[in-house]
Amino acid sequence: MNLSSSHLADAVEAFSALPSIGKKSALRLALHLLQQDQDQRKLLATAIEGLQQVCSCERCHNLSDEPICSICKDPRRDERLLCVVEGVRDVMAIEETGHFRGRYHVLGGVIAPIDGVGPEDLNIDSLMERVKATPPEEIIMAISPTIEGDTTIFYLSKQLSPLGIKVSTIARGVSFGGALEYADELTLGRSIVSRVPYRV
Amino acid sequence: MNLSSSHLADAVEAFSALPSIGKKSALRLALHLLQQDQDQRKLLATAIEGLQQVCSCERCHNLSDEPICSICKDPRRDERLLCVVEGVRDVMAIEETGHFRGRYHVLGGVIAPIDGVGPEDLNIDSLMERVKATPPEEIIMAISPTIEGDTTIFYLSKQLSPLGIKVSTIARGVSFGGALEYADELTLGRSIVSRVPYRV
Repeated sequence: MNLSSSHLADAVEAFSALPSIGKKSALRLALHLLQQDQDQRKLLATAIEGLQQVCSCERCHNLSDEPICSICKDPRRDERLLCVVEGVRDVMAIEETGHFRGRYHVLGGVIAPIDGVGPEDLNIDSLMERVKATPPEEIIMAISPTIEGDTTIFYLSKQLSPLGIKVSTIARGVSFGGALEYADELTLGRSIVSRVPYRV
Repeated sequence: MNLSSSHLADAVEAFSALPSIGKKSALRLALHLLQQDQDQRKLLATAIEGLQQVCSCERCHNLSDEPICSICKDPRRDERLLCVVEGVRDVMAIEETGHFRGRYHVLGGVIAPIDGVGPEDLNIDSLMERVKATPPEEIIMAISPTIEGDTTIFYLSKQLSPLGIKVSTIARGVSFGGALEYADELTLGRSIVSRVPYRV
């Protein structure tokens, strides 16, 4: 791109380094910011640099501003339920539903031998220590229903079985509001096999 | 959104204030930056704040780092051709083609009475002063073919006519590579009326 201002070119360059932002979008963002006053730009710049302050919760590995995150510190959360998830986005997604009042443990990925991710690369040791120290009544595996996800659940359940803690997975089936004809075969097939009694 | 880190929430907030970036995209950008090192974030933050240095060229009103922009200062540009455009993006688009080696004048908009934009709101006075001081041989109106654009061209040509400078508009017609059947009626109709002799 042929930009008459090197400062504008720098901003376009920096924006287009972000995921899913191309040169044209980067230019649009830079020109938008150019029309804002310096306070607005300062706000964005400060917020970006402020990301350095974000750390990982020592207990559950969720994103946090402090060594122990707000969910782990909250005494109103049910300690008897522990939800194991793949990443921080899953915590956000589940929190968004408002249907879970227990605690979390973020694995930081799933076991994927092809990508060279083994159990030792995930936050599994800290999970084992944690559940041994204060055993929850139930551990809910809220992990994506993929081959890697299923492998991870299997591995974890094997590790956890000597402790005698109930392990469950989130229900899988046809989406609410989804038409049967649009559900994929695997989901539809499994949802018939794992049908549930009808309660009035 | 339920974010466990206020710094992350600040970044998501600041990003989602940008055009065409919603909460989900803002979160994706913030999480991406979180995985980068602080130098990368500093680079983006500095580039954003650096936009304050961008100013408007005193002569042509294009974006510039200095009082007179690089195009106005370039002695290799043809002073006899002056291209009048609506905005700075048009300068970029025309420069990108590599087919124009003259100078520019950025109006900063078009005459749009409905939106309350009159000739006095545009860089028309500075255009008149400029062409009176050093008259070009030809003024090319590279303005969008809309009602407001046509009104602006008409107004400018009236203002310029006493000076005896040749005024032209960019050619309008069916796009190169565009199939006739997909051209809109107005464009196709006008391109038949303003047909050009075929040269072998």
